[in-house]
Amino acid sequence: MTSKKSKILILGFGTVGQGFFDLFSRKRDMLGLNNVTISEIVDMKFGHIVDPKPDILKEIANGKTFPQKDVISAIKESDADIVCEFTWLNLKTAEPAYSHVKTALELGKHVITTNKGPSALKFKELTELANKRGVKFLMKGTVMAGTPSFNLLDLLPGAEVKSVRGIMNGTTNYILTSMEQGKDFSVALKEAQELGYAEADPTNDVDGFDAASKITIISHILGWKHEFSDVKIEGIRKVTPEQAKEKTKLIAYSDKSTIYVKPSRLPKEDILSGVSGVMNAIEIETDTMGKIYAMGPGAGKIQTAQAALTDLMKIVKG
Amino acid sequence: MTSKKSKILILGFGTVGQGFFDLFSRKRDMLGLNNVTISEIVDMKFGHIVDPKPDILKEIANGKTFPQKDVISAIKESDADIVCEFTWLNLKTAEPAYSHVKTALELGKHVITTNKGPSALKFKELTELANKRGVKFLMKGTVMAGTPSFNLLDLLPGAEVKSVRGIMNGTTNYILTSMEQGKDFSVALKEAQELGYAEADPTNDVDGFDAASKITIISHILGWKHEFSDVKIEGIRKVTPEQAKEKTKLIAYSDKSTIYVKPSRLPKEDILSGVSGVMNAIEIETDTMGKIYAMGPGAGKIQTAQAALTDLMKIVKG
Repeated sequence: MTSKKSKILILGFGTVGQGFFDLFSRKRDMLGLNNVTISEIVDMKFGHIVDPKPDILKEIANGKTFPQKDVISAIKESDADIVCEFTWLNLKTAEPAYSHVKTALELGKHVITTNKGPSALKFKELTELANKRGVKFLMKGTVMAGTPSFNLLDLLPGAEVKSVRGIMNGTTNYILTSMEQGKDFSVALKEAQELGYAEADPTNDVDGFDAASKITIISHILGWKHEFSDVKIEGIRKVTPEQAKEKTKLIAYSDKSTIYVKPSRLPKEDILSGVSGVMNAIEIETDTMGKIYAMGPGAGKIQTAQAALTDLMKIVKG
Repeated sequence: MTSKKSKILILGFGTVGQGFFDLFSRKRDMLGLNNVTISEIVDMKFGHIVDPKPDILKEIANGKTFPQKDVISAIKESDADIVCEFTWLNLKTAEPAYSHVKTALELGKHVITTNKGPSALKFKELTELANKRGVKFLMKGTVMAGTPSFNLLDLLPGAEVKSVRGIMNGTTNYILTSMEQGKDFSVALKEAQELGYAEADPTNDVDGFDAASKITIISHILGWKHEFSDVKIEGIRKVTPEQAKEKTKLIAYSDKSTIYVKPSRLPKEDILSGVSGVMNAIEIETDTMGKIYAMGPGAGKIQTAQAALTDLMKIVKG
C-alpha cells in the first residue's frame, strides 16, 4: 500500500489506453494502489473524460462521447502527477507525442509512454528535462511490450553491457516465418495484413524503422551515443523464401560503436533462430553473465498495458 | 550511495564465496556500496578470516590459513547484519546450511543463499522466521544462477502465474545434447564428468533431484503448496540416443496442483527444444503476458556471484 496520493492523466484512449484502464482497474487492489486513481482521459475521438467511472469502457463502446479538449491545455490544467502518453506513432517528428511529453515533464509530472517517437527521437532532451525536474520518464512498453527486455538489467545490478541483439519486430518475424514454407514476400505480407499483423502501409515494419527505433531506445538507455539517424537500416523486402528457410531473421544489434538493423542468416545453434511467428526476443551480453535471453510477445493490448503498469509501479513504489 | 552501514559475513569460501568476494570488490564503487563491507569469512578449510584484505584470494591461493572457528559460534558472535550462506548442498537434511540460515535469521540478520538445501526443504519455516524478524531470506542463485528466472516476476507487477516450466539442470541438458549425436547415456555421462560438468557421483543431476529442488523453490516463492517430497521425479538414465535426437529434454514443471521433473519430448516449435548444452531456460505463463521465456547460464563462478549480488542490492536498496 502506498500512502502518497497519485492521479493519472491518460492521453490517447485507443487499444493501449483502454487496455491500461482495464488492467489498472483489475490489478489495483492486489497492487495496493488504492491511493492511485485515473483522474482524467483525453482522446481525439472520445473527448475529455474527467473522473472516469468504472464502466467507461462500456460507455464509449456504446457511443458515448465527452466534450472536446485540446491535449496540451488538458495537460497544463490537470492536477495529475503522472501522465500516460498513448497517442499515435510518428517516427519523423515524434509529434504530437513529443509536445505532450515535454509539456508534462516541464510541469514536473512523471511520464509513462509506449510511444517510440519521443523515446527514440528525443530521448536525451526529454531524459535531461525529467532529471532536472526530478521526475521519471519511463518507456518499457516501447520495446517488446511487457516482455522483459532492457529492464532485465534491473535484475543484474553491476553488470556491464557489451552488446544487445534481438528480434524486435513481430510483423517481420511473422512474415519471415511464413516465407519459410516457400511463400514470396509479397504473398506473406498480404496474409499478414489480412490477419491484422501488418498495417495497410507496412513501411515502418518491413523496412526496419520500427526495429531501428527500438534498438535506438535501448542504446540510449545504456548511455551509448547512437541516434536514430545513425542506425544502418535494411528491411526484409529483398529476402527470398530460400533465405527465410535458412533462418534469415531481421536482427537489430547495437554495441558501443555499432548500431544496425538487417536481415541476418542465423546458424541453427543460435537460439534466436528458433524464434518464430510474432514472438520477440532479446540477447544481452554482459561482463558477469555472458549472454542471456528473454522472449515473449512484443505487442498486444494487455501485454502493452502490463508494460505501462510495470512503469507505474516504478514511479509509485519509488 | 547507501547511507546505512552494512557488514557481510560469508559462510563457505569455495567457488561461490570466492567469486562473490571478487565480484563485490570489483563492483562496489559502481554500485555505491562504500558503506557495505565484507567483514568476516568462515570456511572449513581456510578458517575464520576477520576483515579480509583485498588480496585475500591471493593469500589463500598461496596456502595461507586462519584460526579454525565453529560456524554457528561465528554467526552468533558476529556483528554482521547480512549472512551469505555458500556452504555445501545436502538435499536430505539441508544441513549444515539449514542451521546456519536459521541461526542467522533468529538473530535478525538478513540471509542470502545459493544453497538449494534450506531453500527447497525448509522454505516455509525459514521464510516465516525471516518475516517475523523483519529481515530478508533471499535465494536467487539457487535457480539458474544470475540468469533471470523467478525474479522475472519483479518486472511484471500484478501478473498472476499460471504455470512454470523449464530446463533447470545444465548437466543433464549437456548430456542429452551430447546424446543427440548417437552416444549412449553412459558414454555421454563419462564425457561430462571428464569435462567437469558432472560430478563423480552424478545422482543429484541425472536422477532429477537438482531440478526438483529448483522447481520446488519456485513453487514456494509463488505461494503454492508443493513440498520437495511431492515432486514426481524421473531422471534421464533411461533416455535413449533416439529420444535425445527427437529433442527429449529434462523438463521441470509446476502449476498450482501439479509438480514434476521428467524427460519430455518437445515439438520443434517449442522454443525450449532449441536450448542446448549447459544452457538453462524457464517459461513462465501469466494472465497478462501469456508465455514469456528467459535463458542463460545456470551455473558458473561469476554467474552465481551475480545472483548473490542481485540479492544483496535488494537488501541494501530496500
